Amino acid sequence: MNLREKFLKLKNDAGSHSPSINSVLKQIPEIKIEVDACFLSNPYATKLFIEELKTDLFETNEIEKVLEYYPSQSPQIAKYLSKDLQIDSERIFIGNGAIEVIQAFLHNFVDGKIIIPIPTFSSYYEYIINENDVIFYKLKKEDDFRFDVHDYIEFVKANKPNTIVLINPNNPNGYYINESEVDYLLENLSFVENVIIDESFVHFAYEDSDLVQKSCVRFIEKYPNLNIIKSMSKDFGIAGIRAGYGIFSKDKVSKLMKNGFLWNINGLAEYFFKKYSNLEFIEKYELVRKKYIVETQYFQEKLQNLKNVKIYPSKANFVLIEILNGKSSEEIAINLLLDYGVYVRNCDDKIGLKGEFIRVASRSKEENVIILRALENVLNF
Amino acid sequence: MNLREKFLKLKNDAGSHSPSINSVLKQIPEIKIEVDACFLSNPYATKLFIEELKTDLFETNEIEKVLEYYPSQSPQIAKYLSKDLQIDSERIFIGNGAIEVIQAFLHNFVDGKIIIPIPTFSSYYEYIINENDVIFYKLKKEDDFRFDVHDYIEFVKANKPNTIVLINPNNPNGYYINESEVDYLLENLSFVENVIIDESFVHFAYEDSDLVQKSCVRFIEKYPNLNIIKSMSKDFGIAGIRAGYGIFSKDKVSKLMKNGFLWNINGLAEYFFKKYSNLEFIEKYELVRKKYIVETQYFQEKLQNLKNVKIYPSKANFVLIEILNGKSSEEIAINLLLDYGVYVRNCDDKIGLKGEFIRVASRSKEENVIILRALENVLNF
Repeated sequence: MNLREKFLKLKNDAGSHSPSINSVLKQIPEIKIEVDACFLSNPYATKLFIEELKTDLFETNEIEKVLEYYPSQSPQIAKYLSKDLQIDSERIFIGNGAIEVIQAFLHNFVDGKIIIPIPTFSSYYEYIINENDVIFYKLKKEDDFRFDVHDYIEFVKANKPNTIVLINPNNPNGYYINESEVDYLLENLSFVENVIIDESFVHFAYEDSDLVQKSCVRFIEKYPNLNIIKSMSKDFGIAGIRAGYGIFSKDKVSKLMKNGFLWNINGLAEYFFKKYSNLEFIEKYELVRKKYIVETQYFQEKLQNLKNVKIYPSKANFVLIEILNGKSSEEIAINLLLDYGVYVRNCDDKIGLKGEFIRVASRSKEENVIILRALENVLNF
Repeated sequence: MNLREKFLKLKNDAGSHSPSINSVLKQIPEIKIEVDACFLSNPYATKLFIEELKTDLFETNEIEKVLEYYPSQSPQIAKYLSKDLQIDSERIFIGNGAIEVIQAFLHNFVDGKIIIPIPTFSSYYEYIINENDVIFYKLKKEDDFRFDVHDYIEFVKANKPNTIVLINPNNPNGYYINESEVDYLLENLSFVENVIIDESFVHFAYEDSDLVQKSCVRFIEKYPNLNIIKSMSKDFGIAGIRAGYGIFSKDKVSKLMKNGFLWNINGLAEYFFKKYSNLEFIEKYELVRKKYIVETQYFQEKLQNLKNVKIYPSKANFVLIEILNGKSSEEIAINLLLDYGVYVRNCDDKIGLKGEFIRVASRSKEENVIILRALENVLNF
């Protein structure tokens, strides 16, 4: 097999998700990846966290205790987050990555139909045990996959689901529903048993020039049917640690904790959550969060100059790009990878995304220059 | 509150499990713990693993990739284990600690009554969703909590359960059912839908003077109803990493993987499983495994000389001790902790264990000397 074939096989084996850069490097070591623009994380936050971790754990040898001993039970860890979120810790469900939170919610609390907008993060429909329960709400290409609040409310009213899911900003297109619209939505959807809002990318969204952090956590008391799910892998760039959480009703959290989930957090994730409750760390984090957003804005502007593509508006740290030069997204993605070492997400397996699409993450300033140059070359060819 | 009260409150808050040493140190920093004889792990294996990890990940800076990127999907990780276990990877379910494997099995495959011998590791009955499904098989104090194969088979036949669980060696008493007895048991229990054997402590058991590793993995083809669950936290001393696995039928594994568990393994656990498939590492591990068993045997011999106690026979890395000097196990445990810095497990909350019992882990040679001296002093007082 040549490199191209090897890569296609690897992608095929990974199902509806991209093989991680670790898998690619391990299984096809001949491929040289220069920039991983598939992985949706803030590289400056990773750098900050790893520096802190080296100081706190490696230099002191504390790491040995972190690896050897049992971490705290998860209700203990929820207390760290409680402070920052200003939410009662009994409403916080700590997960081994947001994916465990998604799984726990879908397997325990979805009782009937669930509406999921597409295109979106596929686990939400893949983890539903009975696939017949899923109703897709199709975001329209002709509307640039924008989310129309009124149209959506009508759709929900017509379908009477038990649960609805919104990822805000949405993946893979980065469309952001702003806070006042979320408020309006929730106001009009009080008849739905469970509203899940997944805010895994919300640290990259903004509504003003100060780039103040947004979140619908502020609506948690106002709307009893609101459930929030959040990954920490994207904003903090620490996917290898597996850290996420959910904010549910006390009843839901205690139901989950009654028969499980007591030691689902590893030692490094506990260290992360503890760090996250530390004001000094969060001040440093805010600096790299804003720096990254500003650079991502600049990157998106530059992308607008590319020929033979359509760039979809995004308030996340990635951009959905439609290829208009007659080539397939697979061809473009493989060219980028094999000729320029730039790994992007070919979206040809995304349900609800018909056409030739790739998703490109914003990385560091220097890496974004490499991504832009590679895209220019590949698209003009 | 004085130290004693603070500690009792902490233990109370931790439910039917001991607070981890991390929790104790964090919440009652005044307590000086010299030896953690509550935590059931091989300290030499921890040392070996951490040395390897420092060389492989810290010195090379590979740790950054391990923390930043998504780990491999769990079916990929099952392939590492497949080699060592000589089991098809599609039969291996990789878990975020054995506890996730236990939870996944109990919540998905137990359909009817489940027989659980007591005393034993409490999560097996706590994680059952409907507590009425649990039938306890009481190990008898007058038989030193030994497991009588024939009596057990009769009990199972009389109760017709859907699932049975055996922890071998059992926790908290360390009784080991040898391979020929397990074979006989399985032969006679073919009518039970699911037999779970939890081998989390099996690396410490032995049947000959060469201390050859035992496991009922050898019976997995012979008995289709056999399911094995294994923690890696005890034998490798890495509870903070969260690593465990199950060996089930292909159908069971694929049912679990259909709607979940795709990214439940963190980067360090992936590194561990990879290491575990490395022959050179396993050769080094075998040395520290045997060294630890020999020292544990010596420790158990010395314990036999203690007055005012009964020592129960164990082939695990811990010993169940009954207090016979009229004091309560709580009193003894608190004395050991506050006066000697020795943290042991007070078993007064263990279902099926009536009387005054503590469980004491074997630690390093030096630490075992400290434990023995403390026990001597506390018991003679």
